[in-house]
Amino acid sequence: MSDLISLALPHVSKLHAYTPGLQPNDVGWVKLNTNECPYPPSPKVGEALVREIGHDGASLRLYPNPTSAPLRAVVAKLHGLQETNVCIGNGSDDILNLLVRAFCTREAQLGFTMPSYSLYPVLVEIQDGESTVIEFDRSMRLPLERIAASKAKAFFLTSPNAPTGVGFSNAEIEQVLKTFQGLLVVDEAYALFAKENAVELIAKYPRLVVVRTLSKAYALAGLRVGYALGHPEIIDVLDRVRDSYNVNRLSQVAAAAALQDNAYYMDVVGRIKATRDRCVRGFANERGWFTYPSQSNFIFTEPRNARGESGPAVARSLYDFLYANKVLVRYFASHALTASFLRISVGTDDEMQALNQKIDSWLKAAPLA
Amino acid sequence: MSDLISLALPHVSKLHAYTPGLQPNDVGWVKLNTNECPYPPSPKVGEALVREIGHDGASLRLYPNPTSAPLRAVVAKLHGLQETNVCIGNGSDDILNLLVRAFCTREAQLGFTMPSYSLYPVLVEIQDGESTVIEFDRSMRLPLERIAASKAKAFFLTSPNAPTGVGFSNAEIEQVLKTFQGLLVVDEAYALFAKENAVELIAKYPRLVVVRTLSKAYALAGLRVGYALGHPEIIDVLDRVRDSYNVNRLSQVAAAAALQDNAYYMDVVGRIKATRDRCVRGFANERGWFTYPSQSNFIFTEPRNARGESGPAVARSLYDFLYANKVLVRYFASHALTASFLRISVGTDDEMQALNQKIDSWLKAAPLA
Repeated sequence: MSDLISLALPHVSKLHAYTPGLQPNDVGWVKLNTNECPYPPSPKVGEALVREIGHDGASLRLYPNPTSAPLRAVVAKLHGLQETNVCIGNGSDDILNLLVRAFCTREAQLGFTMPSYSLYPVLVEIQDGESTVIEFDRSMRLPLERIAASKAKAFFLTSPNAPTGVGFSNAEIEQVLKTFQGLLVVDEAYALFAKENAVELIAKYPRLVVVRTLSKAYALAGLRVGYALGHPEIIDVLDRVRDSYNVNRLSQVAAAAALQDNAYYMDVVGRIKATRDRCVRGFANERGWFTYPSQSNFIFTEPRNARGESGPAVARSLYDFLYANKVLVRYFASHALTASFLRISVGTDDEMQALNQKIDSWLKAAPLA
Repeated sequence: MSDLISLALPHVSKLHAYTPGLQPNDVGWVKLNTNECPYPPSPKVGEALVREIGHDGASLRLYPNPTSAPLRAVVAKLHGLQETNVCIGNGSDDILNLLVRAFCTREAQLGFTMPSYSLYPVLVEIQDGESTVIEFDRSMRLPLERIAASKAKAFFLTSPNAPTGVGFSNAEIEQVLKTFQGLLVVDEAYALFAKENAVELIAKYPRLVVVRTLSKAYALAGLRVGYALGHPEIIDVLDRVRDSYNVNRLSQVAAAAALQDNAYYMDVVGRIKATRDRCVRGFANERGWFTYPSQSNFIFTEPRNARGESGPAVARSLYDFLYANKVLVRYFASHALTASFLRISVGTDDEMQALNQKIDSWLKAAPLA
C-alpha cells in the first residue's frame, strides 16, 4: 500500500467498486445486459427538455430546485400520496446510498437476500458497515422466518428480484413487515412489469420504504432519476443526508414529463411484457431450459448445450459466444445460484429474434461445449 | 424522538441539512445570492444537448458512460493532465462528499477554515466524523502555522475563499503543502475569476487535490458538474466510493461542450470581473464600506447605514430591505466575522445598477436603521 493510499480510511483501500454492466461505445451491439427499455421515452420528455433548454440554455445557469419540489408533487399525485412521502434521487442508486448512510454501520447491519441487486454489499462496504446476507435456495421463495430472525436494522428486498425476475406478493411483504422489526426497503425497480407492488402498504406500515427508478420502464436510464416513497419522518431523514442539489434541472423536467404520460408507458410496458412472455415460453418450452417466471423486463434462464447439459461452463460458453457475436447479456459467475444462468434483458422483438438466432448458431457451432 | 426516527443512526437524528441559497420560483427577482453566472452558457452547450436528445430522446434510454470517460478526456486536455488525474462529480459537492467519505471519520478529522464553504461541516456531520476548525481573523490571511499544526487528516481550503472572495497565492498553498502532512483539497469553485490557481502544483505534490465546478464561471449550475484533479491513486480512491452512474448523459455532453469553448468563457469571465471591480470600487471608495478585495464572482462588503454605522443589525436591515424589494443577496448571521457583511453575487451591469438603486433607497428610507 502506497503512502498516498494510506491517507484514505483503512476500509477504503480494500473496497471493490461496483461493476456496472458494459456500456459499449461502438455501434452494432444487441444490448440486452442492463435492463434498459428498448423503446425511446415518451415524446413529451424531449419536448419538455427542449422547452427547458430554451433558445440559449439560459435556465441552465441557475441551480435546480433543491428539493425537486415540482417533481415530488408529480410523484405524489401518481401514487396517491403526499409530497412529504416523496424523496427524489439522482437515480434510485442515490436513494439506496442515502438509506445506507442513514441506517447502516458496523453495529446496525443492513440485510439483503443473495442473490439480489449486487450494489447493496458495495454500498455497505463504502459505509464500512456490516451486512446480513439471507441466502435463497433454488426455489427463490422468500425465506420469511430467516428475515424475521435476522439482526438487520434495515433490510433491502428487491421485488421483483434481480437477477431472477421473481416477484414477491404483497401478502409476503406484509408478512415481513409484521415479523421483521427494522426498516423494510422494497426496491421496486421493476415494479411496472410486475403483478403487484407494495405502494398501497405504505399507509399501513410506517417502517416500509418503496424505491422506484425511471431507468427501466420509463426509458430514462441516461438521466438518473429515482425516488423513495415512505413515511414523512423517513423522507425527512433522507433529506438530511441528501446533497442539496442532487437532481439537475433537465432530469427534473424530463422525469415529470415521463411520469405524466401514463398512456405512452402503459403501451411500452405492455409490449415489453408480451415480448418477455413469448421469450420465456421459448426458453422454457421450446428449448427446455429452466427459466424463472419473470415479473420484470429481463429473463433469467439456465442454458443447455446441444448435449442437454447445463452448468457454469455452459452458461459461460453461451455468454462468450454471444459476446463474440455482438450480443450483450449479463453473466453472474460469483454465486452458485446464478453461475449456471444468463440474465437477458427484454429487447424489441427484432432484438430477441437476433438473440435466438445466435443461440441457435451456438448450439450448432459448439455441440460439445 | 419518535420510534421511527430512532431506527436511523444516532447522529442522523441530530443532523441539520445544509441551507442552500433561496431559489425563488416566481419571476422578477434580481438574484444575487448563489453566485450563478449572470450570462447564459456557451451556445455550443445548447447545440450539444439538442444533438444528444435527438428527434426522439432515444439515447436517454441508455445508461450514461459510467466513468464520464469522454468528459475526463476533455478536462485532462484542458489542464494539461492525464485522464487518470480526473474524476467527474454530480457537481463539485459530489466530489467533496466523496472526499469526506474516503478520508474522514471521528478519528480522522477533516480540517477547514471558518469562514469558508458552509457545506463542509454538514458533510462531516453526515459522515459522523470530526472537524478541525481553523478560525480566520478579520485580515482573512491564511493561518499557515495553525493549519500545519492541526491534527486534520485532510484539509479543505476554499481558494478564492467564500464568502470573502479573498484568494490565496500558490506560494501560500505550497507553504501549506510543505508543512501540513495530510491531504490538501483546494476547492477552486471560483478559480476562473482569480489571479492564480493551484493546478500546476499537482505534478509536484501528490497530496494535493484541486476541485472545480461548472456551476459558476461556466453557467451550468442547473446541470451539476464538477471535478477533481489529483494523483491517480487519489482519483482511484474517489472512484471506489463514487456512484457508478453519478453524472447523467446530458450533463456529460453539456460540460464537454462548455469546457471546449474557451473563447466564449474568456469573454464572460472578463465581463464579470470588470463589473465586479467597478462595484468593489463603488462599495469601497464611493460608499466607504469595508469590502474585501474579490478574486471571485461575488463581493463581500460591510454595509454602513446613513449614520455611518456598521454591524449585524445594519447588515440584516439592508438584507431585509433588499429582500422586500425583490433583490436577493446572501447573509451569514452565524459567525462574528460574517454577520456584519453581505455577500453579493456579481450580476449583469443592469442588475448591479438595480442593486445600487435599492441600496440608495435603503439609505434614504431607514436613516436610523
